[in-house]
Amino acid sequence: MNQEALYKITYGLYIVCSGDKKQGNGFISNTFFQVTASPAQFAACCNKDNYTAELIEKYGHFSVSVLHQNTAAETFGRFGYKSGRDIDKLDGMDVKYGITGTPIILNDSLAYLEFKVVQKLDVGTHWLFIGELLDAQILDEVNFPITYAYYREIKKGLAPKNAPTYIAKPESEPENVKEEHNQYECSDCGYIYDDKEDGVRFSDLPDDWRCPVCGAPIGDFIPF
Amino acid sequence: MNQEALYKITYGLYIVCSGDKKQGNGFISNTFFQVTASPAQFAACCNKDNYTAELIEKYGHFSVSVLHQNTAAETFGRFGYKSGRDIDKLDGMDVKYGITGTPIILNDSLAYLEFKVVQKLDVGTHWLFIGELLDAQILDEVNFPITYAYYREIKKGLAPKNAPTYIAKPESEPENVKEEHNQYECSDCGYIYDDKEDGVRFSDLPDDWRCPVCGAPIGDFIPF
Repeated sequence: MNQEALYKITYGLYIVCSGDKKQGNGFISNTFFQVTASPAQFAACCNKDNYTAELIEKYGHFSVSVLHQNTAAETFGRFGYKSGRDIDKLDGMDVKYGITGTPIILNDSLAYLEFKVVQKLDVGTHWLFIGELLDAQILDEVNFPITYAYYREIKKGLAPKNAPTYIAKPESEPENVKEEHNQYECSDCGYIYDDKEDGVRFSDLPDDWRCPVCGAPIGDFIPF
Repeated sequence: MNQEALYKITYGLYIVCSGDKKQGNGFISNTFFQVTASPAQFAACCNKDNYTAELIEKYGHFSVSVLHQNTAAETFGRFGYKSGRDIDKLDGMDVKYGITGTPIILNDSLAYLEFKVVQKLDVGTHWLFIGELLDAQILDEVNFPITYAYYREIKKGLAPKNAPTYIAKPESEPENVKEEHNQYECSDCGYIYDDKEDGVRFSDLPDDWRCPVCGAPIGDFIPF
């Protein structure tokens, strides 16, 4: 078995949202696809522990915003690596409320789709929510949709622990190799800063430097 | 509702196969994704009318070959626009038989995955087969996985009628516009050859010219 083969599967990246004006939340998902044309139905895969899963179950509707290639690191940080149980993820975002009242994130999004849940399928650690399409709109004709491969290879992003595509990191390298490299890990998203690879000593980075993957401040990095 | 928004969803393209050495078949799918990490499970969406769906139900296993960007038009023609009830799609192909005995197409594939079915979910016109990953191998490190967007935009491919992402073609243009264009439709895949856009009159094309999308011979084209 070669785990690298799993990286050859193509995904986009989306913000899946649910709730209403009082209580809303969203998370970054790569596992979203159309399952039937008549009627137009889509499947969204969501970890059972996610706060958004709880909201989709409660409200019976959700939205999907299609992220573009220039999506800000802070957007990935907020929606991909934090929990809506700890922070209000929608605070300060550009939010539209759809036909069902579900929040729809407009930041960094080139299109959105809105669904009512028609089925909920149990696949173990995750739910597959089957949604019937209620609305779909284009927001931006210029940017390209970001793919998961682009996020991983160009933006050096990693799957968070709750993602269906999460792969555990290999064991740490031996001490002597670690010392040569001077690596620091972002405690939010797991991104590894490497003095040697990145060309600047971590200690020489400016105070306002932020994690290139999730936008976390430099203080969130710990020696790896 | 803007149907164009649906084109912003990112998919790869795969050949999904099932059966054994005596009876095997496969079809081109874009709707395949991972649903859980522990255990590694994937969902494959398949029209209930597909011969391959019948085989997956019968055998309880399937393989997925990840197609690359240089996939031959003939491969799309054979697996995407024909039925295994009419032709033996595996005849003459480079086929490996996996752990379960399921056929795996190696042509134009940069990786493959093999699954045993653990759940079958009814979503209307289609089944969602949930498969537990048994094996995964890389075949080619050079080529990139083809995306559905690349197939549509660069290769001008169309979703076949049984696809979850099928969108019916708009009504024919008025007669006077049609005459100016001289359009011919591939009766296999629906590709439209247009004298004006393609720069060469259809009647001037050589006899061995083939459909650029599915590899069908010129005789399969009819005036549109």
